[in-house]
Amino acid sequence: MLPNQMVKSLIGKNIRVEMKGDESDLVGRLESVDDYMNIFLSNAVEYRNGEKLRSLGNLVLRGNNVILIQPYEG
Amino acid sequence: MLPNQMVKSLIGKNIRVEMKGDESDLVGRLESVDDYMNIFLSNAVEYRNGEKLRSLGNLVLRGNNVILIQPYEG
Amino acid sequence: MLPNQMVKSLIGKNIRVEMKGDESDLVGRLESVDDYMNIFLSNAVEYRNGEKLRSLGNLVLRGNNVILIQPYEG
Amino acid sequence: MLPNQMVKSLIGKNIRVEMKGDESDLVGRLESVDDYMNIFLSNAVEYRNGEKLRSLGNLVLRGNNVILIQPYEG
Amino acid sequence: MLPNQMVKSLIGKNIRVEMKGDESDLVGRLESVDDYMNIFLSNAVEYRNGEKLRSLGNLVLRGNNVILIQPYEG
Amino acid sequence: MLPNQMVKSLIGKNIRVEMKGDESDLVGRLESVDDYMNIFLSNAVEYRNGEKLRSLGNLVLRGNNVILIQPYEG
Repeated sequence: MLPNQMVKSLIGKNIRVEMKGDESDLVGRLESVDDYMNIFLSNAVEYRNGEKLRSLGNLVLRGNNVILIQPYEG
Repeated sequence: MLPNQMVKSLIGKNIRVEMKGDESDLVGRLESVDDYMNIFLSNAVEYRNGEKLRSLGNLVLRGNNVILIQPYEG
Repeated sequence: MLPNQMVKSLIGKNIRVEMKGDESDLVGRLESVDDYMNIFLSNAVEYRNGEKLRSLGNLVLRGNNVILIQPYEG
Repeated sequence: MLPNQMVKSLIGKNIRVEMKGDESDLVGRLESVDDYMNIFLSNAVEYRNGEKLRSLGNLVLRGNNVILIQPYEG
Repeated sequence: MLPNQMVKSLIGKNIRVEMKGDESDLVGRLESVDDYMNIFLSNAVEYRNGEKLRSLGNLVLRGNNVILIQPYEG
Repeated sequence: MLPNQMVKSLIGKNIRVEMKGDESDLVGRLESVDDYMNIFLSNAVEYRNGEKLRSLGNLVLRGNNVILIQPYEG
């Protein structure tokens, strides 16, 4: 399974995303992802050092600033 | 809805944008966005830690330095 | 008006540019800009926290490291 | 052997990856890699200064934020 | 004159280059430049805060990490 | 000689590479390089401030995070 396919297999599930230039992680439901790894999350929550910082709702993350994506089982 | 479509659905509304290499957020009316997520904002305002820093008026943000885009209901 | 068109509409005028990895702003006359937002400025001046740092004359800025472009009325 | 071929030759083996904007290294089994060096790791573990920080399981790393990839013999 | 043409007009002359992730400037003779603004400098010298740090000779700079290029009259 | 050709002329020789987001330099034998300046080094050694930090053996560096490449005569 290629990296892009692995990410697409997570659509509809909760994922954790680390972004460049951002000390906090984002956790949310993966609504969609495109070939550039641009990401549309719903019910997104910002975490820092494992603690919930704030709820952000719907948001879009720019693919080229994504560092890491993984399934989230919180 | 793909990430780009989600952003385009926000045209004419207020959005919040986090940029790489910039500690402050930008809030403004989304005038237009292209496929690279380059963004044209009007009535843009710079915020830091939730406090208004200054009004910037019209500006263009370079897409590949966008980290996060979301609807803004301030 | 798309973001690129907004920037092109500023040719011949003074603009302010924030660059990634650069704490100072650049202000100068926009001579030309291409589709990657590479920018050719004349009479460029470096500002930090609103204070003039030094005059730089002609310079070229690499588009993918541009964060923000806006009209400058100094 | 071109750089991409060198990385593909590591599929099925453990690799160490340094990511931009991340002070820790990632070690895991290389499941797949595409032409952009997007990477799918299984059994990934985060290391800092040679000490194991935490297990991360499956994850995807964005190719343009990869700094360094090498075989890992731990 | 487009930004790329402005840079090409400096071939054979001394230029100053600011790179991302590098606190020092590079000054050298522009041997060649391509469409990505990859740069080949000869007789390159590293400067920090206007002071000469060390001579580097021939080197190649990666275009997407260039911040600023300008003619150098030292 | 274009920048890419200059780098290719170093295949089989020792080079020094500065990477973005990495305070140390890498020195090693250039095995191969592609059009994106992705680099395959053998016998790579990490240096910081001119002091040898550790031997890394074979590794691949992602081209878009390369800052500077130069011949190394150590």
